[in-house]
Order: sequence, then structure tokens, then C-alpha cells
Amino acid sequence: MLLENICVILVEPQGPRNIGAVCRAMLNFGLADLRLVNPQTDHTVHEARQMAVNATSVLERARLFTSIEAALSDCTLSYGTTRRFGKYREDLIHPDEAARQLLPHAVNGRVAMVFGREDKGLHTAELDLCQRFVTIPTDEQLPSMNLAQAVLICLYEISKARGDLSGLSHGRKQLASGKSMEGMFRHMKQTLADVGFLNPQNPDHILRAFRRIFGRAGLSEREVRILQGLWSQMDELHVRASETDSGECNG
Amino acid sequence: MLLENICVILVEPQGPRNIGAVCRAMLNFGLADLRLVNPQTDHTVHEARQMAVNATSVLERARLFTSIEAALSDCTLSYGTTRRFGKYREDLIHPDEAARQLLPHAVNGRVAMVFGREDKGLHTAELDLCQRFVTIPTDEQLPSMNLAQAVLICLYEISKARGDLSGLSHGRKQLASGKSMEGMFRHMKQTLADVGFLNPQNPDHILRAFRRIFGRAGLSEREVRILQGLWSQMDELHVRASETDSGECNG
Repeated sequence: MLLENICVILVEPQGPRNIGAVCRAMLNFGLADLRLVNPQTDHTVHEARQMAVNATSVLERARLFTSIEAALSDCTLSYGTTRRFGKYREDLIHPDEAARQLLPHAVNGRVAMVFGREDKGLHTAELDLCQRFVTIPTDEQLPSMNLAQAVLICLYEISKARGDLSGLSHGRKQLASGKSMEGMFRHMKQTLADVGFLNPQNPDHILRAFRRIFGRAGLSEREVRILQGLWSQMDELHVRASETDSGECNG
Repeated sequence: MLLENICVILVEPQGPRNIGAVCRAMLNFGLADLRLVNPQTDHTVHEARQMAVNATSVLERARLFTSIEAALSDCTLSYGTTRRFGKYREDLIHPDEAARQLLPHAVNGRVAMVFGREDKGLHTAELDLCQRFVTIPTDEQLPSMNLAQAVLICLYEISKARGDLSGLSHGRKQLASGKSMEGMFRHMKQTLADVGFLNPQNPDHILRAFRRIFGRAGLSEREVRILQGLWSQMDELHVRASETDSGECNG
């Protein structure tokens, strides 16, 4: 039940062997919901099946998506994996902490672990679609892990954390869907641009800050509606303020 | 130093890709001492190097042995990995416990993690050469793990136990002071009241919702400043909008 609500999303995976190995790692730890965003290879070829071994069922049931947004649309919480620190450093957590955080939310909502390309990982704009960020600390001699190995560590920690928590509190709050979150963010972006709150040179600077704040907060549907209301209020003020400038009242 | 005293022993590995992947996993977690007992393949072939990626140095320095006894001769403690319970059931420990046990012994002695064949694992007689026994708990749907993935989990736990990995998740970010949070909330309350976003009968209803959201998010000083900027922007819009209503421009 818990594990049925956890999906693995691979963004533009390039190696069929890696995809197959991910399927085996998933079934090793009881997961079966695999989603592929624009795979750069046919995931059903022989090499993939060979690495999936007895997990070909996961491979065959894998669903294809053309965007991360679409793959996340039914997810209430998503964890993006990255090695690139920089602006995410403050928010980066490790797989064990992510597993402990994630499981309670998987009781009554769908949770996603998102993994990027073998070579380049996830782009910043793709990480922005996730609410939380996970990194696997590795030795500086060779920080880069194989994709399937990175997936394995995250699922292993979920399996461990699951064994730890017996009797989860089902009274955990329900988070807003990725769909309504993105709808609210679209409204926010339009409003903040209209009222001139964004720097035209770098609008994402502020937008990302808000995404991070609300992402960490974990919003309920009601809270998303309150924010929608706030943006609408700003829209209305902006329209009325513009009427002044347009000098309409002199007409 | 610690990690230099930990070696990985693969008994009769069959797949060059697996051997290469083991090398990468080892270097990911700072290990370099790989020992192969009667490998069933040439471990230096292209497929092995391809999977080792930047860990080909580990692959090239791997030492060959004709028996487990020989590979273990300089080790003071060895952990044999197995999925076959039976006579070992009572003694079986998980990778995290093994890591905690093993590290103190690696300070002044050489410790080995021994892994068996991809298909059959370690024979009972081979396990008898180890002092302790490790198993990785997996889902009964598919208990059998890929060799390199089993090695990875064990090394990941060693790295975790070593405390290398505790840095990030424990290093909490600097949160904004209560003083600046309250200053921002006061501004928010005034602004939302001025623009009519609050229900005069019950203003706290919405204010509390925002307090909860920002409280859960854990704001940095920079994020508090961004929110202050948002309220100021609303104040300005409100003033300009009011000028219309007040008909000032006719005066």
C-alpha cells in the first residue's frame, strides 16, 4: 500500500541497461511504478530485459511521458536528485532523511523520486518542479554514481525507513496535487510579472525563491487556494492602479 | 586510512560489467582494494572498463587469487554476504550493523567484505571462512540483487557509519531571526488588512494560514526580505488604486 504510492521517474535516460537495472532495484525493494520522461532509447530492448532479470514486469508496465510536469501531475510530493549543490545546498538532504520524510506522505498521496540523465542529471528548471532535493554524498575521488546505483540507494533507504516505522499515523495531512501547485505557480508568475515585481533580466530569481518556500512548506489544497486568492487580489489592485495611470478618470 | 584497510573480495564473478560496476561503487565510497578469486571472465575487457568509468584504476590494480583463503590471508576480520539463511540465520546481520561493527576493526587491521557468484552466491564452505555474515533485506517478490548493487549497499553503509555522510543532513541552514519574522508578519497583517484581503470578522483565519505556511517552510533572512518586498509592492498598488477611487486626479 505504502510502496504502491511511491513512483520512480527517470528523465531522458540514455542506457537501456540502466533502465533494466532500475527495474530490478525497484522490485528488490517492492516498488513497481516506473515513469520514463522522453527516454533516449527503446526501454524494451534485449539489454534492458537482461538487466531487469525477473523485474521485466516493471519494465513492461513503465509509463512514458513527454514532460516532467505530466509525470508529476498526480504526485503530491516530489524529491529531485542532484549532485549540483550551489543554490540547492541549503535544502539538500540525504536519502535516509528523504525516506523518513517521504513515507508518511505516501500513506494518502503519491510521492515521486526523480532522477536525471546519466551524464548531466536534472537541469535547474527540472529541479524547480520538485519540492525537495536529495543528494547521495560520495567520495570526491569519484562523486558520480551510476544511475541505477543512485536509484538503488534511495529505494534501499525507503525500505529501511519503512521497516523502522511500524504503524504510521494515518492522520498525516494531504498535500496539494502537483497539478494545482503548478496552476498556482503559473498564476503567481503572471501576477508578479504584471505588477513589476520581477526583474525582467532574471525573473526566475524571485520565482524560484517562492517555489522553494512553498515547496518546503508542503501546501494543502486549501493553502494553494489562499495563495491563488492573494495573486487575484494583486491582479485586481494592479488593474485599478493602472486605471489611474491611464488617466481614464479624466476622460 | 580507515578505508584503506577495507577490501572487497569477489568470488568467481562471471560478468565483466558487474566487476566494472563494483569498481565504480568502490571508488564512489572511497575504497580501492579489490580482490578477485578465480574470476570467470577477463576483468580488463572493454565492458568492464566501460562500467568502471573513472574507476579503471581500481580495476587495473585488482589482485587475483586462486582461493578465498589466500585472498583473506592478511585480513583480521571478514564478512561473508549471503541470501541463504539456514544455519546462518541466527548470525545474519544487515549491512548497517555490519558497517558499525567493522569500522573499529579497520583502524588497526584489514577487514574484508566477501561477495559470491552472481547466480549461486557463496557456498557454505566458503562462508565458513568468514567470521560474520551479512544479508541485505529485500522484497520477497525479487530477493536476488545484482552483484554490484549488493556491494554498493554494503559500501554505502560503511561510508555512512564512518560519518562521512552525516555532514549535509545535519548541517542545518541559517533561519531568519524571530525578530525579522515577526516584523514581516506585522507588515503582512497591515497590508492584507489595508487591501481588504482579510475578513474583518475573523482576520486571523487567513493570517494564521500564512504563518503556518511560512513557519513550516523555515525562512531565511533573504526570503523574509523577499516577502517584505511583496507586501510593499501590494501597499504601493493599493495606494495607486485608492487614488482612482478618491478621484484625486480630478482635484
